Amino acid sequence: MPDYPKTSRNRVRRLPARASYDAKVIYEIIDEAPLCHIAFSEEGQPFVIPALHGRLGDQLFIHGAPASRLLQHIVADHPVSLAFTVLDGLVLARSIFHHSVNYRSAVVFGRGRVVERDDEKLRALEAISEHLLPGRWAEARAPSRAELDATKVVAIAIESASAKMRSGPPSDDKEDYALPVWAGVLPLALRMLEPIGDLRQAPDTPLPGYVRVLMSPCS
Amino acid sequence: MPDYPKTSRNRVRRLPARASYDAKVIYEIIDEAPLCHIAFSEEGQPFVIPALHGRLGDQLFIHGAPASRLLQHIVADHPVSLAFTVLDGLVLARSIFHHSVNYRSAVVFGRGRVVERDDEKLRALEAISEHLLPGRWAEARAPSRAELDATKVVAIAIESASAKMRSGPPSDDKEDYALPVWAGVLPLALRMLEPIGDLRQAPDTPLPGYVRVLMSPCS
Repeated sequence: MPDYPKTSRNRVRRLPARASYDAKVIYEIIDEAPLCHIAFSEEGQPFVIPALHGRLGDQLFIHGAPASRLLQHIVADHPVSLAFTVLDGLVLARSIFHHSVNYRSAVVFGRGRVVERDDEKLRALEAISEHLLPGRWAEARAPSRAELDATKVVAIAIESASAKMRSGPPSDDKEDYALPVWAGVLPLALRMLEPIGDLRQAPDTPLPGYVRVLMSPCS
Repeated sequence: MPDYPKTSRNRVRRLPARASYDAKVIYEIIDEAPLCHIAFSEEGQPFVIPALHGRLGDQLFIHGAPASRLLQHIVADHPVSLAFTVLDGLVLARSIFHHSVNYRSAVVFGRGRVVERDDEKLRALEAISEHLLPGRWAEARAPSRAELDATKVVAIAIESASAKMRSGPPSDDKEDYALPVWAGVLPLALRMLEPIGDLRQAPDTPLPGYVRVLMSPCS
């Protein structure tokens, strides 16, 4: 996959060594982030709103109610920016100044269009669903005609994007390494805790395999 | 603490029953979110960038390098919007349509100013540090004169804000409760995994108490 060209819009100015314009790197961050933050601007006033997303190739999909201000704004040919952020850990240096976080983030620029055709709409909803929980789409009841009509789906083609990331141990000033302060990385991860079955189902309803694979020492 | 007045800027239009304008609720979300997303607009082009934050009362603090485009923009008296989002779980309904997420989010509006005075700057940096890892500020080496000068701190007074949240089990259509599909909530939480000590320290350097309290079954 190609790089996104560097322009004044997507060029990373601070710490450019941490930047990437590689579509593959950017897509991986988009796919790993459970949600995104969408920014739009109305008469100079910026707004930022969290949203769930799906991705197919260079198309991002967002869904919501037809009356959603965000979705109405996006499809009125306004530019939007989306951020996808994964926090990987806290970086504890000996000095406050060198403290940092390990992270991977992508910032995307584009414009939206309404997804009108049923087949693309279903593929987009499947992408959003499978992004959150792979395997769920095939098991849950599919959207009815009325539900599909009550759902607005917006596609945003990625026009421009960049990624920025940090990984690895802290980096301290030479003279600080002698300080008796614990230094290192505290890895962070979003983990599934013990599933809570809905009380309104048969108590022996088995936990699906696509949920069991998410079990960890935290669950 | 009072409510933030509802205006066209902060009023939650979709599912207003999930909204809150209570400063206490909003502050709790801000304090729990490990990072925020800041949106700003330049000549109609929105940008959104992740950032670490601290809060003291109704003042939010962001820091970075003096050359940061974001910080330079914020302090030029431009309006900004910040989002703070905590993802609490996936809500699995019997139908795709009723799938949802449990979450708490706050959206804030304000304008920034540079924090010039050393005492306020240090309090702001302490707030950012203690927000990420309570207890760390007192142990790590404090910022030197040169480090303080190389750090720009911006304060954003919260002018307007709102929160939106969902919790609890899925809600399905009456006729779907009979479907043999596991339904419930998959709780999610950001957890610390096993700490990784920096190799450049004495191997017997003890893990600080303020890190040990973050240990969980995942660590």
